[in-house]
Amino acid sequence: MAGKVYFVGAGPGSTDYLTLRGRDLLATAEVLAYDALADDRLLDFVPPTCQRLDVGKRGGRVSPSQAEIDRLLVEYCGRGKRVVRLKGGDPFVFGRCTSEIAALEAAGYAYEVVPGISAALAAPLLAGIPLTDATLGRTFAVASGHDPDSLDWEALGRIDTLIILMGGRNLETICDRLVRCGRSPQTPIAIVKWAGRPEQTVWRGTLETIVDRVAGEKLSPTVMAIGEVAKLNLLVS
Amino acid sequence: MAGKVYFVGAGPGSTDYLTLRGRDLLATAEVLAYDALADDRLLDFVPPTCQRLDVGKRGGRVSPSQAEIDRLLVEYCGRGKRVVRLKGGDPFVFGRCTSEIAALEAAGYAYEVVPGISAALAAPLLAGIPLTDATLGRTFAVASGHDPDSLDWEALGRIDTLIILMGGRNLETICDRLVRCGRSPQTPIAIVKWAGRPEQTVWRGTLETIVDRVAGEKLSPTVMAIGEVAKLNLLVS
Repeated sequence: MAGKVYFVGAGPGSTDYLTLRGRDLLATAEVLAYDALADDRLLDFVPPTCQRLDVGKRGGRVSPSQAEIDRLLVEYCGRGKRVVRLKGGDPFVFGRCTSEIAALEAAGYAYEVVPGISAALAAPLLAGIPLTDATLGRTFAVASGHDPDSLDWEALGRIDTLIILMGGRNLETICDRLVRCGRSPQTPIAIVKWAGRPEQTVWRGTLETIVDRVAGEKLSPTVMAIGEVAKLNLLVS
Repeated sequence: MAGKVYFVGAGPGSTDYLTLRGRDLLATAEVLAYDALADDRLLDFVPPTCQRLDVGKRGGRVSPSQAEIDRLLVEYCGRGKRVVRLKGGDPFVFGRCTSEIAALEAAGYAYEVVPGISAALAAPLLAGIPLTDATLGRTFAVASGHDPDSLDWEALGRIDTLIILMGGRNLETICDRLVRCGRSPQTPIAIVKWAGRPEQTVWRGTLETIVDRVAGEKLSPTVMAIGEVAKLNLLVS
């Protein structure tokens, strides 16, 4: 009998944000395929007998290609294994599951996608910034900042709150585009690095000042929140 | 010594989507303040000695005003209690925490906001719709549909994927505005009711056909996903 692959969202930063269902699936996994782990302690949730496949790209180490990862999932599923494919954040928010799911569908194997907490939403929260507020912002948009030329800045600039993932390298371009599309240079922006981890860092400024404020910093992995809500700093604890 | 209030996101639909941190906080709560519960089994997570305050508005029952809820949180915090304020989904996505947090800040009491899985993201996922896809949609926006006149439809219409919460009563207006702003009448739309619960229901159509397809249905609570990704139906399980 064929197995099944569970695409499980691990949430951001810490095992704290794993769901109960995610924990239960890890606890019964026969095979675990993971790449960038939010928290190494996630590995403690799988049984000692669980086979662990580190399929991540890191440093100079040779890592499996996407085609190889697809093939591995199909192969273990075909052997009847209960496979957990762990994804950072939420599998369906920039989770790049398409190719893996297509491979399983082509092979006729079962899979299931289990939601996780996306850093897109949790990073602002963990920096004390609500994504919506009755007066400061009632809509928000989420985009990847890795290729600013592919985005409709005029539309994005008119959404109250803008969340940009993977935008660190293009911060200057992003700020520039938004101002050129009519967003005030005084619009608040917060950049959250390593959200949810002990080393979480937050930089705050405006579209005009932020580039200077983060000069020399390595802005990956970061989530940016842009808009009036980004001036808030709730979460006194 | 003063207590502390934890605003905990319960996630959508089922205790499955509660986080480990949310569970731990419930397990040590001395007071629990809740309204609309995603799943009554959430009450099983608090100790038997925990005081439960149902502050929700339901049916004809008289429920506390927002000012009274604010006052209750401050009062129990002042008595040194460890209070969990449970919120559906994520506390910072249309969670209406502002007034409660302001009351605690005014009183100088500690609080903490703990992220949860927002139905805005999880409802599409649980209907087999990825929020982002390399070819079908690379940006998404989230808005509340309870007051369509307050929204910038021209900007929202240009975002690849649009997620509308609380839009059931205004479905026809929403579809109409999007088409008038240039979105194709053939744009796919999916409406997900009771996401994550056993009674979850999904209706699919286009901006042109969906109003007829859901005629006579009570569309609350629902999340709508609009855009090319909404034609997908992944999640074979």
